[in-house]
Amino acid sequence: MDKRTMILDAMATLVREGKGNTASVSDIAKTACIAKGGMYYYFRSKEEVLDALVARQYDSILPLFRQMAQRGENALQKLRHLIGVYHQQVADPDLDHYLHLPQNAAIHQKSLTHILNSIALPLADILRQGVEEGVFHCEDCLSVAQIFLSAFVFLFDPGLFDRPEDTALQQLQALSLIMERSLMAPPDSFRFFWDEKEWERGTSGL
Amino acid sequence: MDKRTMILDAMATLVREGKGNTASVSDIAKTACIAKGGMYYYFRSKEEVLDALVARQYDSILPLFRQMAQRGENALQKLRHLIGVYHQQVADPDLDHYLHLPQNAAIHQKSLTHILNSIALPLADILRQGVEEGVFHCEDCLSVAQIFLSAFVFLFDPGLFDRPEDTALQQLQALSLIMERSLMAPPDSFRFFWDEKEWERGTSGL
Repeated sequence: MDKRTMILDAMATLVREGKGNTASVSDIAKTACIAKGGMYYYFRSKEEVLDALVARQYDSILPLFRQMAQRGENALQKLRHLIGVYHQQVADPDLDHYLHLPQNAAIHQKSLTHILNSIALPLADILRQGVEEGVFHCEDCLSVAQIFLSAFVFLFDPGLFDRPEDTALQQLQALSLIMERSLMAPPDSFRFFWDEKEWERGTSGL
Repeated sequence: MDKRTMILDAMATLVREGKGNTASVSDIAKTACIAKGGMYYYFRSKEEVLDALVARQYDSILPLFRQMAQRGENALQKLRHLIGVYHQQVADPDLDHYLHLPQNAAIHQKSLTHILNSIALPLADILRQGVEEGVFHCEDCLSVAQIFLSAFVFLFDPGLFDRPEDTALQQLQALSLIMERSLMAPPDSFRFFWDEKEWERGTSGL
């Protein structure tokens, strides 16, 4: 394992143990079993380590999306997969908690834009496939993907908007209807966003 | 004028002069013509002053929205007004520049959620009026308003996403089509988002 990876793994361990905030550069070096001086060869500060950890976390989903894109599924099946992967891979509760501290706002903000930019491309590809299959209609699928994602990424971020559970459900229902109507998709195409039974039914064969 | 207002005005002046970042608490007090000790009675830190300044800026639009709501205009006319007020009042380039510095990310983030929450209510009222007038269709108008606004507030924030001008235009066109289709509104209802001629035509009588 290269030293850069060791440092990022150490930072991830510290965040998982709830020590992300209090850990010093020395603590990170110690956890990574490397000399503190060696750390500065890779990162100039603790912020840079956190920044790189966040980027690694989000970049790790890109190969999964590429794999997904090559499967012989239809657009709606792929969309379910995309959302499943997003929930499993992106939503790391430990890292999330740490990013929501005010002092990490700059990195948090960067992580939200990073994730939107990363997922917009595969989502646009799925929308274009849906257009070919005749289930979706969109002219500028990339812009449409970015707009839908801005609701997912920002409005649904628990650190930005503290919503009671029924508000979250209502917003998901509204978003599924906005997507259905604006993509002129078959009725209830996006019901799985909020209806657990519908989600299980659709993903049971995955 | 009360001292709190004097402090906020001083902070606004410093931001306008490009000194927001370097100004100390003493500089703020000096500009406000009050004793430094007196400042701490109102604010514990410079961050608190900035925070209050941002809140004041955004809260100043609420009375304008209330006035607007009472006029005898139809929903589409009110929507134009709302967007006009938003652009004139919210988009303060000096404050904006300052908020986009990494060290102000926490306040910037708070300001974005603040603005979304403030505008969602009047926008939802306009949508409901449109439903009554038979031009819009939405079941849960508040959620719909929040979702549309998350694109406006986050995706269109120049500090979060650095977009070339043609991308900005494409996204505005896509958003106007998403809103039109999902609200089942008459064709080109939201064309004024991106078509300047359409904007001037519709607002010439305002």
